[in-house]
Amino acid sequence: MPNPTAAILVIGDEILSGRTREANAYHLAGELARVGIDLREIRVVPDDHHVIVDALNALRSAHTHVFTSGGIGPTHDDITADAVAAAFGVGIDVRDDARQLLENALAARGLAVTADQLRMARIPDGATLIVNGVSGAPGFSIGNVHVMAGVPSIFVAMVDAVLPTLEAGTPRLSREVRFEVGEGRIATPLRDLAADMPHVSVGSYPFREGEVRGTNIVVRGTDPALLDEVVARLEAIRAAVG
Amino acid sequence: MPNPTAAILVIGDEILSGRTREANAYHLAGELARVGIDLREIRVVPDDHHVIVDALNALRSAHTHVFTSGGIGPTHDDITADAVAAAFGVGIDVRDDARQLLENALAARGLAVTADQLRMARIPDGATLIVNGVSGAPGFSIGNVHVMAGVPSIFVAMVDAVLPTLEAGTPRLSREVRFEVGEGRIATPLRDLAADMPHVSVGSYPFREGEVRGTNIVVRGTDPALLDEVVARLEAIRAAVG
Repeated sequence: MPNPTAAILVIGDEILSGRTREANAYHLAGELARVGIDLREIRVVPDDHHVIVDALNALRSAHTHVFTSGGIGPTHDDITADAVAAAFGVGIDVRDDARQLLENALAARGLAVTADQLRMARIPDGATLIVNGVSGAPGFSIGNVHVMAGVPSIFVAMVDAVLPTLEAGTPRLSREVRFEVGEGRIATPLRDLAADMPHVSVGSYPFREGEVRGTNIVVRGTDPALLDEVVARLEAIRAAVG
Repeated sequence: MPNPTAAILVIGDEILSGRTREANAYHLAGELARVGIDLREIRVVPDDHHVIVDALNALRSAHTHVFTSGGIGPTHDDITADAVAAAFGVGIDVRDDARQLLENALAARGLAVTADQLRMARIPDGATLIVNGVSGAPGFSIGNVHVMAGVPSIFVAMVDAVLPTLEAGTPRLSREVRFEVGEGRIATPLRDLAADMPHVSVGSYPFREGEVRGTNIVVRGTDPALLDEVVARLEAIRAAVG
């Protein structure tokens, strides 16, 4: 059976303006590979209702899962939850269990929930909460869409909470062989190797370290024995090019 | 006149597998803000011909410019140039000026061009080369699509070469005001401010440094006087919340 597929939708003007270097997609990409869910797309869009709704609908129909990052805080620029409700055509309102989580977290700091903070307890109808130990405000899953915070520490905690609830695939393993020659010297045997091994992906990544021009070859697949065989062939190629 | 818009299309399994943390889109996002081209989307897709063609066609019809990163080396997994030719419905072949650039760069290292390296001189019909001082292999522009290398040092050099050739917009300026209170304490005045100032975007980014919970407010727009006014109002809000 093929692995489930996924897309990550990152919502935030701060990424597109160059202010913030995106970190959450990189983290989740590694976690998805570990559990055997194949990440097929990462998309970054601005804080714009219609753009978010369109992206959600395109991605949720194309993939087993969509994970979103960002836009679920208490301020006017946090519009993700409403966009998700609109994409699914469902209502959204403050929900008691989400409100309770918020109240508990703030009470632990001696604070009451403000009207603005209460926005973070607005949950689309039919969603399941994604509870996390870092902040009181929950994320949520609805259909195949998992809505998480943009703050990296909270995002990581929400990923840890939601991934174990999803059906896993066959983990994608990777092996790496380092060549201290440029790509041009090994492109022909690599091409032959890739053609012989349709169930393994063979990626070629040139690097330069001082005067050394080299190439890292990364092979990925789900069958460890096949990867061993590919690595052995790569080592033979390396011995041949000297 | 509104600013030109742009999308960045990053092509590479190595990003989606979690192996590599994407760096080029972050660099280009900052450069685009500087020259007044509004970045509206970043999309990361795998090394898959049909997916690349579809993404190119969707993005080039929606934005003034599309910038791509990755997939133009000499190996079997470098399929971007062919996908671009297919998206535009034009032919692709080795071009003499591109071959000359490659030959010159390799000759400087005492090397001849191999058949595989010659793949990097394959240019879609009608494209303009993007020459760079780091590697001999050029990128190219065709229509509103600018095709650049994935290796970060080469990507940066190609961005430096291509951006001055594009019509600039009004640079988007940003100012930042730091609050040492959480978002929930300032969400109401921020909402009012954002509603009063439709030509300025007001973004709210919570942070935590040890025990300090704070919020960075980032305001962006093209009119420096308007930004000054917004910053003054933010400072008044900060004085009020103490």
